Amino acid sequence: MSLLVISAHAGDFVWRAAGAIALATSRGERAKVLCLTYGERGESAKAWREGRTLEEIKDIRRTEATGAAEVLGAEIEFLDAGDYPLLESTELVDRMVRVYREVNPSVVLTHPLADPYNQDHPAAARMGLQARVLAQAIGYDAPGEPLGAPPVFFFEPHQPEQCGFKPDVLLDITPVFDTKRKAMECLPAQQHMWDYYTDLARRRGVQVKRNAGPNLGLPHTTMGEAYMRLYPQVTDVLA
Amino acid sequence: MSLLVISAHAGDFVWRAAGAIALATSRGERAKVLCLTYGERGESAKAWREGRTLEEIKDIRRTEATGAAEVLGAEIEFLDAGDYPLLESTELVDRMVRVYREVNPSVVLTHPLADPYNQDHPAAARMGLQARVLAQAIGYDAPGEPLGAPPVFFFEPHQPEQCGFKPDVLLDITPVFDTKRKAMECLPAQQHMWDYYTDLARRRGVQVKRNAGPNLGLPHTTMGEAYMRLYPQVTDVLA
Amino acid sequence: MSLLVISAHAGDFVWRAAGAIALATSRGERAKVLCLTYGERGESAKAWREGRTLEEIKDIRRTEATGAAEVLGAEIEFLDAGDYPLLESTELVDRMVRVYREVNPSVVLTHPLADPYNQDHPAAARMGLQARVLAQAIGYDAPGEPLGAPPVFFFEPHQPEQCGFKPDVLLDITPVFDTKRKAMECLPAQQHMWDYYTDLARRRGVQVKRNAGPNLGLPHTTMGEAYMRLYPQVTDVLA
Amino acid sequence: MSLLVISAHAGDFVWRAAGAIALATSRGERAKVLCLTYGERGESAKAWREGRTLEEIKDIRRTEATGAAEVLGAEIEFLDAGDYPLLESTELVDRMVRVYREVNPSVVLTHPLADPYNQDHPAAARMGLQARVLAQAIGYDAPGEPLGAPPVFFFEPHQPEQCGFKPDVLLDITPVFDTKRKAMECLPAQQHMWDYYTDLARRRGVQVKRNAGPNLGLPHTTMGEAYMRLYPQVTDVLA
Amino acid sequence: MSLLVISAHAGDFVWRAAGAIALATSRGERAKVLCLTYGERGESAKAWREGRTLEEIKDIRRTEATGAAEVLGAEIEFLDAGDYPLLESTELVDRMVRVYREVNPSVVLTHPLADPYNQDHPAAARMGLQARVLAQAIGYDAPGEPLGAPPVFFFEPHQPEQCGFKPDVLLDITPVFDTKRKAMECLPAQQHMWDYYTDLARRRGVQVKRNAGPNLGLPHTTMGEAYMRLYPQVTDVLA
Amino acid sequence: MSLLVISAHAGDFVWRAAGAIALATSRGERAKVLCLTYGERGESAKAWREGRTLEEIKDIRRTEATGAAEVLGAEIEFLDAGDYPLLESTELVDRMVRVYREVNPSVVLTHPLADPYNQDHPAAARMGLQARVLAQAIGYDAPGEPLGAPPVFFFEPHQPEQCGFKPDVLLDITPVFDTKRKAMECLPAQQHMWDYYTDLARRRGVQVKRNAGPNLGLPHTTMGEAYMRLYPQVTDVLA
Repeated sequence: MSLLVISAHAGDFVWRAAGAIALATSRGERAKVLCLTYGERGESAKAWREGRTLEEIKDIRRTEATGAAEVLGAEIEFLDAGDYPLLESTELVDRMVRVYREVNPSVVLTHPLADPYNQDHPAAARMGLQARVLAQAIGYDAPGEPLGAPPVFFFEPHQPEQCGFKPDVLLDITPVFDTKRKAMECLPAQQHMWDYYTDLARRRGVQVKRNAGPNLGLPHTTMGEAYMRLYPQVTDVLA
Repeated sequence: MSLLVISAHAGDFVWRAAGAIALATSRGERAKVLCLTYGERGESAKAWREGRTLEEIKDIRRTEATGAAEVLGAEIEFLDAGDYPLLESTELVDRMVRVYREVNPSVVLTHPLADPYNQDHPAAARMGLQARVLAQAIGYDAPGEPLGAPPVFFFEPHQPEQCGFKPDVLLDITPVFDTKRKAMECLPAQQHMWDYYTDLARRRGVQVKRNAGPNLGLPHTTMGEAYMRLYPQVTDVLA
Repeated sequence: MSLLVISAHAGDFVWRAAGAIALATSRGERAKVLCLTYGERGESAKAWREGRTLEEIKDIRRTEATGAAEVLGAEIEFLDAGDYPLLESTELVDRMVRVYREVNPSVVLTHPLADPYNQDHPAAARMGLQARVLAQAIGYDAPGEPLGAPPVFFFEPHQPEQCGFKPDVLLDITPVFDTKRKAMECLPAQQHMWDYYTDLARRRGVQVKRNAGPNLGLPHTTMGEAYMRLYPQVTDVLA
Repeated sequence: MSLLVISAHAGDFVWRAAGAIALATSRGERAKVLCLTYGERGESAKAWREGRTLEEIKDIRRTEATGAAEVLGAEIEFLDAGDYPLLESTELVDRMVRVYREVNPSVVLTHPLADPYNQDHPAAARMGLQARVLAQAIGYDAPGEPLGAPPVFFFEPHQPEQCGFKPDVLLDITPVFDTKRKAMECLPAQQHMWDYYTDLARRRGVQVKRNAGPNLGLPHTTMGEAYMRLYPQVTDVLA
Repeated sequence: MSLLVISAHAGDFVWRAAGAIALATSRGERAKVLCLTYGERGESAKAWREGRTLEEIKDIRRTEATGAAEVLGAEIEFLDAGDYPLLESTELVDRMVRVYREVNPSVVLTHPLADPYNQDHPAAARMGLQARVLAQAIGYDAPGEPLGAPPVFFFEPHQPEQCGFKPDVLLDITPVFDTKRKAMECLPAQQHMWDYYTDLARRRGVQVKRNAGPNLGLPHTTMGEAYMRLYPQVTDVLA
Repeated sequence: MSLLVISAHAGDFVWRAAGAIALATSRGERAKVLCLTYGERGESAKAWREGRTLEEIKDIRRTEATGAAEVLGAEIEFLDAGDYPLLESTELVDRMVRVYREVNPSVVLTHPLADPYNQDHPAAARMGLQARVLAQAIGYDAPGEPLGAPPVFFFEPHQPEQCGFKPDVLLDITPVFDTKRKAMECLPAQQHMWDYYTDLARRRGVQVKRNAGPNLGLPHTTMGEAYMRLYPQVTDVLA
């Protein structure tokens, strides 16, 4: 079992998917985060206002994201493709195919396909999905075995309703929430997000309890993350 | 664990959900089918053409559906509410609340909420969902404990695309397909449906394999049933 | 071939479907308009302001609608079920089933299923669709043969975009537009609608030309009506 | 200017619309809350567990809601129509028409039209919208002048994404948030909701700032409420 | 206050947004029209049939559009990016970022994101939205201050329902309609559009009145334009 | 009358549209299949596993598809644009414009615009639609007369519900089904598809009968293909 997380910018995987990552690594699974960019232009306003150079900002972001991945027990790789705008290209998709073939993920997480506030996010998702299909083809020229059909989950965008994000999976992250909080605290430039995403986890936790039913005895402090499936769930038990 | 299946007419649960029922009973779980009507007016054309009376037709349908339920290892109850049209009423919903409170299902199956070919189907679903919410309220005046929040799955209608039915769960019913076939054969008046729903199970089976990925080693003969969730899935593992 | 038009109020069929009706009768087909109400409360503001009584208003509306139907060469029947609100009932649906069985329509026209400006319209449509399905069942207790599966077209509501109305059929009514205009002029209380619906016919006519292609040689004065299908089109030629 | 708020149960208007109400009354406008039921069965679990009788529970809820309305400077009226289920009826709609004619609201707030967790909410909304259209008709037999066309806003349901709720209006309630909090504190049985809806107001406040643009100088503590419009906005300035 | 209008071809802003532009300039605000192309290939059929060269056609279109902008009191700039197809490129988006930074618009108007009749329109919109987000980032390398978050309105396409265009703002353009008509008359090659868009303004005007309510006393001759919001409205008054 | 079929890979037109093609040629109409690629990488797994080279695979696919087209009485042309991924380019679109201008189709068939399992399919459709619009413009620099406005039909994807495919045209292909089967048998590498698409034709045939109505006397063996329209149907008879 292994988890691949495709993140447009260096911080996205922390706010939106750290719970799922920490759950996977706590079960002993491999987790790999693939950051297409550092978010150096679009998501580093504080550093720009402080007068940092582009290279300095990339360094800061890489260090922070690497620290967060470490807290989560995940590998991390940066493709440094340049953000704002993140340009889609055959070459970048090809690099992603190779990552798929190497990791052979059993589950994939990425951004949803619409975000009117940030076009880099859907661009990352489109390339991530394109690469997943290419990696499945034996005729695609890249090392490794053809990929299976790992399910894809979209993690939650910043303004979910404006992105057509309707949660269809509520993940109980209570046992690893402290780890998620620590990972968030690796990103000091966005300190206002720590509480914002703690509140969100609590809110999604209330929905975990609501949808699991009152008689399940989930604690008052249940914390959650929300996801959408791209493909239908395959199962042998309805539950 | 227990399964409650809410079926507008006597035969619906067989064509559309027999696999899920047989899987549940094969795991030793309780399964109960609640038929709101016998389908005596709307789904018994052959018997009417043969000149049967209303009561005869109800008898035939009850016998057939009871036989199918038996094959599946499920209990069955008929509310005889009258079909074509199935009228929504507070009294009928109240009877359904009592069934919910008695069965205390961990999973509920019913029709989708839209069907331009048969308004009884969404009427059954609306009442089934209404009753589920009422049964959750401690203040609702009916025996038994308040219900939890069992997930609800819509089973597949006859013309899925015209009913807004987009499968988001593909259930592997391979181990119990023979049982489903036997249950279908309990309904001799609709013999043309036996092959139709066998073909459909094969088609959904192909999709099970496609979405599970080629490397899972599912057999060529995988059979499936398709479902839609009404509420988000609650889980502690993304898979 | 015969056409059944189910209209909530006495005037609806004129503004929205007179072109289709006139085309049918010009081809020698039977056309029948079924008005569930006279629109006596909800669509007769002018008469109320003039101090007419309820009965007088019904008389006026019946006379006007009868005149319009006559211009179009169509039969008309009024069920006088009471408007604002038009209440849905088993009895009213049963009366409609009998009309279906008697007319045996090859095509059905009615209101779309959503209209936030007028709940009588979707109520009429829901009953019209319910009755159509009941009339198909041999087991439904009403005189006549079971109905086939006539296609259903929704005609255009007053504010189409707010009713989820996306035209998927553009009907060329150029040859009968003069007849439609004459039928509209049978409704003097709503004189401002004559030009409004003439403009609309011109607008839909432009779309007829646009979607038929410039090389078809349709005249500059093409007039149109827009419809939505409820069920898929059955055909043996794609065109 | 006057505001009419149609609430299925006694508490709904507080959690979801207290900010809009307090803003209206702070501008000197009339605000009236119409509670169709006390929420005595469906939203009073704590009181039932304490062994209260139906009448006691109604009393408690009336007292609490009246207190909250007072804090907000709003009138309140209870129709005591019975909840779980809230039954739709011509009589209840007629009573609502009379309220519309008396209040002559310039703005209407109510529940959204879908809520798979609580069917009373859409039932209240459907009746509220039906009554609004009937009240507009001069031919509808009720005292008072025909209503204009007040805009309708849906307030936010408890699990917005599952109810198809996409905010299209973000209301800045910062100046009256303390009043909203005081109104919430009038409902001691649902104390866990105080913080939940404070968190939500903060979350919607972040979105107010995001969508208003960083250069507007809104304070860090901006609080918000989210709404959906049913009808298009009419304006003479795009902003 | 300033208005930025992003138009794929030279004429689009006239037919679809001249009312909004004239309202803005009549209030003394700055308005700037940015035409990405002259519409020289796709929207100049008459000139091509007359045998004009590409350069002649560009000249004609520039002159006409400049005249229309002048009538409206707006600035106009042409990027001459080439139409049919309008190709999306980083360079073109970068030029648009610079316009955003210079104009610092408080409101943005552009095409909707879907148009199956003309792919240049959504291409212009996609680039316009991309540029808006890039212009907001302090890290994006272009002169000027980071942009705020100006609301974006989509203006009405030629066949609105086929483009998923559901008006959610109806703008009353009565006071400036004569100016809009004069601007339209600056485009003599498309004379058939003058009446078409006058009819449309009348039709949208009827909807302005309908949705504003009869008691507002709007004149019979109310003229309107329809818009869709991309982002939620931010306000401190529900109205 | 002529039919243009735009197919991403060499086999697509056979499984999904062979019935429509055979119907057209059986009426004496011209039919042309345009294959953008051979499907050499993405849809030739068997040949890759057998160790064939890229050129060998292209040859096999070309031969097979040419044979299938021959059986159907259709012309076929291959653009060899390279699959997995099929890259969108101005040059490729331009080649397609020239085909449109030469064939002057009265009907166009292509893939739907969404397919999460295969991004080549929507890429082919987007280019096909782009080219159609460009070919309509007299100002577009390519030989031949400007195209009219041929209707566009999307053929059925492999997993229709996951691609947003809701059939709105059901085509009766009974008279030519044997020909379709023979064309499928020209593709021996995908033998498992022969029965799969025969089953599908039977399933769509059941829907042809259902939607045409029982009284039409269609044979039990009716076979069908499903399509979606992109543009509204233009007609002078509702049927």
